[in-house]
Amino acid sequence: MKLSLPPGVSAAAMSAAFTDFASVVGAQWVLATDEDRQTYTDHFALDESRHAPAGAVVPSSVDEVREVVRIANKHRIPLWPISRGKNFGYGGAAPRLKGSVVLDLSRMKKIEVDVENGTVLVEPGVGFYDLHDYLRKNNIPLWISVPGNSWGSVAGNALDRGVGYTSYGDHTSKVCGLEVVLPDGDLVRTGMGAMDGAPTWQLYRYGFGPAWDQMFVQSNFGVVTKLGLWLMPEPESVYAIDMELDKPEDLGWMVDVLAEFRRDGTLQQAPSIGNWLRAAAVLTKRSDWYDKPGLLPDSVINAIRQRFGIGWWSASLRLYGYRDVNRAYADVITKRISAAGKVEIKTKEWERGTPVPPDPFMGYPITFPLQNANWYGGRAAHVGFSPVLPPRGDLAMEQFRRTHAIYTRYGFDYHASFAMGERHLTNVNQVLFDKDSPEMVKQANAMFIELVDDATRHRYGEYRTHLDYMDLVASTYDFNDHALRRLNEKVKAALDPNGIIAPGKNGIWSPGYEGERA
Amino acid sequence: MKLSLPPGVSAAAMSAAFTDFASVVGAQWVLATDEDRQTYTDHFALDESRHAPAGAVVPSSVDEVREVVRIANKHRIPLWPISRGKNFGYGGAAPRLKGSVVLDLSRMKKIEVDVENGTVLVEPGVGFYDLHDYLRKNNIPLWISVPGNSWGSVAGNALDRGVGYTSYGDHTSKVCGLEVVLPDGDLVRTGMGAMDGAPTWQLYRYGFGPAWDQMFVQSNFGVVTKLGLWLMPEPESVYAIDMELDKPEDLGWMVDVLAEFRRDGTLQQAPSIGNWLRAAAVLTKRSDWYDKPGLLPDSVINAIRQRFGIGWWSASLRLYGYRDVNRAYADVITKRISAAGKVEIKTKEWERGTPVPPDPFMGYPITFPLQNANWYGGRAAHVGFSPVLPPRGDLAMEQFRRTHAIYTRYGFDYHASFAMGERHLTNVNQVLFDKDSPEMVKQANAMFIELVDDATRHRYGEYRTHLDYMDLVASTYDFNDHALRRLNEKVKAALDPNGIIAPGKNGIWSPGYEGERA
Repeated sequence: MKLSLPPGVSAAAMSAAFTDFASVVGAQWVLATDEDRQTYTDHFALDESRHAPAGAVVPSSVDEVREVVRIANKHRIPLWPISRGKNFGYGGAAPRLKGSVVLDLSRMKKIEVDVENGTVLVEPGVGFYDLHDYLRKNNIPLWISVPGNSWGSVAGNALDRGVGYTSYGDHTSKVCGLEVVLPDGDLVRTGMGAMDGAPTWQLYRYGFGPAWDQMFVQSNFGVVTKLGLWLMPEPESVYAIDMELDKPEDLGWMVDVLAEFRRDGTLQQAPSIGNWLRAAAVLTKRSDWYDKPGLLPDSVINAIRQRFGIGWWSASLRLYGYRDVNRAYADVITKRISAAGKVEIKTKEWERGTPVPPDPFMGYPITFPLQNANWYGGRAAHVGFSPVLPPRGDLAMEQFRRTHAIYTRYGFDYHASFAMGERHLTNVNQVLFDKDSPEMVKQANAMFIELVDDATRHRYGEYRTHLDYMDLVASTYDFNDHALRRLNEKVKAALDPNGIIAPGKNGIWSPGYEGERA
Repeated sequence: MKLSLPPGVSAAAMSAAFTDFASVVGAQWVLATDEDRQTYTDHFALDESRHAPAGAVVPSSVDEVREVVRIANKHRIPLWPISRGKNFGYGGAAPRLKGSVVLDLSRMKKIEVDVENGTVLVEPGVGFYDLHDYLRKNNIPLWISVPGNSWGSVAGNALDRGVGYTSYGDHTSKVCGLEVVLPDGDLVRTGMGAMDGAPTWQLYRYGFGPAWDQMFVQSNFGVVTKLGLWLMPEPESVYAIDMELDKPEDLGWMVDVLAEFRRDGTLQQAPSIGNWLRAAAVLTKRSDWYDKPGLLPDSVINAIRQRFGIGWWSASLRLYGYRDVNRAYADVITKRISAAGKVEIKTKEWERGTPVPPDPFMGYPITFPLQNANWYGGRAAHVGFSPVLPPRGDLAMEQFRRTHAIYTRYGFDYHASFAMGERHLTNVNQVLFDKDSPEMVKQANAMFIELVDDATRHRYGEYRTHLDYMDLVASTYDFNDHALRRLNEKVKAALDPNGIIAPGKNGIWSPGYEGERA
């Protein structure tokens, strides 16, 4: 991949910056060959060239990050910080703005665990496998919550509001204290970390005065170099309730029942109600089942369900805690669900002292869900569409029906889940496609825009999106003529007058990039 | 109280501002007589004149607030927003900066409840009594969490990180979505409210991009005009575990046991372990017990404990949920506590369908804890000192011993509690004093400064403080030469170049007020 330059930056300036970066991090950690650039693109992108980086710089310490940021200011080079670059479906390692230099933090891998208090301080390079291995190797009785792609960064995932399987699965809500390099190279610690040496940095999240943690999430106000996170003390017992639902319409009543259990605190974990394609796409390819385009006939869907022993929808609940308490909860839950509708329920129990199985619901890192991208064959890819709804069965059913109709019209197989938040519902739709089919790529893009449009008509906003759609989604947040964007961009201009850190991230731009907003 | 003027503002400018304010809110809602000013002082202050306001303006709508802010910019008049002005012990209704105009939002009293989802949107004038009455009058099965002073504002309390008695008692953590007038008069809504008409404004707190809610907490970045808050669905049952501990040293093991239950999620409520003076000071005066200065003899402490049937420390746990689950939890808790040390335990149960008693643990508003200010007689007052510690018994014991020694040395009766956060311990100390005794006022101030100093040596920061000590406490947050303060003040300068909104709040100042930092 040839060198791309950001707007207003000459090849000479970029070259001078690379030389300066090398003086800080060492020449071997400035990656700017054609092959290097290819490495830092988004391999799932509809059009990889749209987010082509100029190269990457890979510091090993917070001091090096500060120096890199200062150099970027000097040469006016936009940086795109990544933790480990595994944000698949949302842009991978690639920058929003073409020609940005990727600030790759994957060499920063420090882990500090506070065993007694159940917290960890991680650098961005620490992946879920790393942290899991560290805890097991040191016999620390704390569990992590992993996402479907555990190659990713623990910090990076929380900073993009990624989610996992356990009751600590709303990762960003478990963040407690950050260390951040600001766009001018200054270094702050948030919360109690603002007091030098405070033993409560990872224990009390608000500190004194305004609390900044969430301002550095899905944000370009700084580069997070350390992130505090709460971990789950290993429970006495885990109680599993796995459910298969026979009909598409079963989504409605199931959402209503689970929403109540989320509101009243019975369920601390956020169950995801996913359709039959979730399992099928991970374990097989479409061509294993059917050789025509268009809607899969019910006979094929039934064959898939039979093969994997799954419902039209599946959902998995987990209770973590004392055995007798879990059983009392399970009794309330299973009675209520069985009274509400027809469902196949399987339960099982794990007890402390017995081996922990390789189960993501018990903090075991996984990557197999990534397989789903291969459903259509060719160069695999997917992009996620994730609007936030009220947790109501009737609205979930309407959302399902409208989205299913749109998928069908564009010729895509419907792949969706409804994740039950504490008081909201996230409808995560995967758009799977074959990058080798230009027609499919074109249709995927057109469908995505229609999906955003449809959600926006119902006033449902996305909680996260791919680089390609950041400006589109940001534009749907339109109260008082985009007042929140004005506020974000006022702060951005004050903190980052040269537009160095991640221009365009989540639709937030700096002065000087006026023409770049899509 | 005579007119005070803020630095750089002439009497003529203030008078012109009052005239302009009157044109927006009506002359009767601009309060600027000597008597009005007296109303808006801090009646608990060591020195009321230090925080004397110039007057108050009392708008009735968000549009009026926006106009008032624009006028304040025009005349460079600092505003001090209050919700209901009942922040007793931290400054009441009074401004940090002498001569500020109090922006009194107590006329804004709208309440919008989403019964199904268990949320409310309140304006700042809504007090805990108002919200409680509204829910009861409309038979809405949602419970509020109240603080010890329920005269206060629901929104204001959450915005100062006040706490309450139930499992929703960490009020600020239940905030979901704000409406804010910015210092330039612009109007934003945060989270999903940034999308006009989104039904998820009170349901999903993060929105898209950086999340702002906590930036307007303990902050002077804007004026909050609406606040979303989650409410507890009325539980099937409440299980009460009340405990009396005989010896000062019992604090240590109790903290360790409760900390574990907080970490593992068994206790969703934050129990407060309080000493014998908590009850005694609310129900009696010192002179009822003893007529000499100095440390109260053990015989007096014992007499007090006997009269009220309390321990040296008391703690109250509450479980909210399904009856059988509560009982399973209670079994685990009481066994563990009884095994850990000697304690007197009383339990009781409430069930849905029976009358809700007037109990703050069940969301019933109260004010009787305010009585404690009368302990020494005279014009009653108190100020709170509240450092944040790791939740460890040994550290709690050391903190207790050191603080007790300081209280004793200064001649104050020790009045403290240790509130068990999810992963931290807040040591709330009340300094009770008689404002009619100049010597006592002087000693209270000297002791407070020594307490901050002592905590800072142990790297414990306060989570909240009185107007008098905001700069002192802010200065203890010293990482990288006060980097977080630099960041806050950079944002403050960008959003509020004229220094209109609450100059000095939590130690954050604007350009132009350089000389005011204490």
